[in-house]
Amino acid sequence: MAVYTDVPDDELKIFLAEYALGEPVSCKGIAEGVENSNYLLRTERGTYILTLYERRVTPADLPFFLGLMDHLAGKGIACPVPIHGRDGKALRLLCGKPAAIVSFLDGMWPRRIGTVHCAELGASLARLHQAVGDFPMVRANDLSLAGWRRLYESCKGRADEVQKGLAEELERELRALEGAWPQGLPQGVIHADLFPDNVFFRGDALSGLIDFYFACNDFFAYDVAVCLNAWCFEADNSFNVTKAKLLLGHYRTGRALNAAELAALPILARGSALRFLLTRLYDRLHHTPGALVRPKDPLEYLAKLRFHRGITQSSAYGLDS
Amino acid sequence: MAVYTDVPDDELKIFLAEYALGEPVSCKGIAEGVENSNYLLRTERGTYILTLYERRVTPADLPFFLGLMDHLAGKGIACPVPIHGRDGKALRLLCGKPAAIVSFLDGMWPRRIGTVHCAELGASLARLHQAVGDFPMVRANDLSLAGWRRLYESCKGRADEVQKGLAEELERELRALEGAWPQGLPQGVIHADLFPDNVFFRGDALSGLIDFYFACNDFFAYDVAVCLNAWCFEADNSFNVTKAKLLLGHYRTGRALNAAELAALPILARGSALRFLLTRLYDRLHHTPGALVRPKDPLEYLAKLRFHRGITQSSAYGLDS
Repeated sequence: MAVYTDVPDDELKIFLAEYALGEPVSCKGIAEGVENSNYLLRTERGTYILTLYERRVTPADLPFFLGLMDHLAGKGIACPVPIHGRDGKALRLLCGKPAAIVSFLDGMWPRRIGTVHCAELGASLARLHQAVGDFPMVRANDLSLAGWRRLYESCKGRADEVQKGLAEELERELRALEGAWPQGLPQGVIHADLFPDNVFFRGDALSGLIDFYFACNDFFAYDVAVCLNAWCFEADNSFNVTKAKLLLGHYRTGRALNAAELAALPILARGSALRFLLTRLYDRLHHTPGALVRPKDPLEYLAKLRFHRGITQSSAYGLDS
Repeated sequence: MAVYTDVPDDELKIFLAEYALGEPVSCKGIAEGVENSNYLLRTERGTYILTLYERRVTPADLPFFLGLMDHLAGKGIACPVPIHGRDGKALRLLCGKPAAIVSFLDGMWPRRIGTVHCAELGASLARLHQAVGDFPMVRANDLSLAGWRRLYESCKGRADEVQKGLAEELERELRALEGAWPQGLPQGVIHADLFPDNVFFRGDALSGLIDFYFACNDFFAYDVAVCLNAWCFEADNSFNVTKAKLLLGHYRTGRALNAAELAALPILARGSALRFLLTRLYDRLHHTPGALVRPKDPLEYLAKLRFHRGITQSSAYGLDS
């Protein structure tokens, strides 16, 4: 929930003059997204999202993110499409910050996850992974093993403030993952943050994916593991195997998971749980009271991590083979 | 900046079924307005604002506010129009809270106030005051003299935390206003909170007034005084007499200010400054660090209050007579 930069109307007018979108009709800050300032922008031509890139997004990465959305839209993936200005550019400065306009996507993210959402998500994720095959740009995942180690080092001194014994458990987990992390799995560009608030539905049908600002090159199966964690646990942190079975089953109709990927699923799911545990822990420990963002609970992901630690076979995720 | 209540999609669907607006297409929390949860709602039929009424708004007052907007829209005032359901009602429950849908108003509020904005505002405020003439409902202003005294009493013990000597200055000011407050001025329903973020423009033309949730019966000239404070001071708290002259001049072309109103303007402006000083002071002293609203600066209004205290003639506001 965030609008960090307030855009004065005269600056918006000058900015918009670079596009063929007509005059601005309204521009309202959206209370969604915690990393950037997002505005719902209406012009004479239509409805758009205007984003000013704030913390965490490295400006040098923006051509990758915007290029990816352009590429995906070209492949028929429903995602925000960057609007290019008269000069061909999709990225320019507004209020001294990098800013872009993308198309507005209909749909709402599901507040209560049903099985139908998981099935739709699985199918859509597979389509996404097929569509990135010939995307030429590359961005390393800075939130994989090395990144987790860095986050852990910056948090370990205070981790036990959140839960006694947490630092030690994280250290043990991190070491285990560093020793057992798979190699050579099929890889490409992944979304890496496909939480329910980044997936829109109209009725029961998935209508689009948003927020590609963590996209990076990594194992496709890691993206699947992120979704297992974000979509297949109930509010009490219990695992819903029906949801997982549907998510994985519909994924596999669009893209096959090979034996190595299936075998790696528990360890990838542990890694994904650790990733969100660590970023949430970092945010919790570095939260400034005046900030307009409520930090999420890191311990939710500790529960998920522990669940996956108890799994040795991917059949526990509802898979037959 | 606030969305306090997150509306689950299935509850929204059930709520919307009471209206003839078609299926929901998207629903995004807006980072504007500090008192209620506001959503920009798009349905098959159009674009609307969905509001869930949270703190500060007394549910018993909602028929007044919604009835006023209905009345004003009927008089041709550009304001949000309550959408009535199939049962004729504009107000019902959503997520256990009173909620209403109103029409979406084009335009943007001006971040940098120019003279043209003040002229447009003055004319529009006069039209508003003419339009409420035959509105039959009444709501007392609970943020007038008695309300200020209550606020002051609840803040005085800690007021000096914000500025040394503030409690004493407030006590003195309050007593002066209680002794000198005018009586018998022309009155009716006023907006009472017509700050720039409640006034929309398209280009240089005023396109609408929003947020009638402080509307109440009081002196029309008090509404003018609120606007003088909110629109005619610069960022360094210096008074811009050109803006005031335009605001008052264009107001008077739509509605005459009589001699008693003109004479009372300095005292009404002091009262209006004290009102916002006290509510901001209260919010500052009672601010919970976790809340998603940044408290506004009460001292901005102390500077304005002191300015008006030095004025004995309304000619200081740029008026000829």
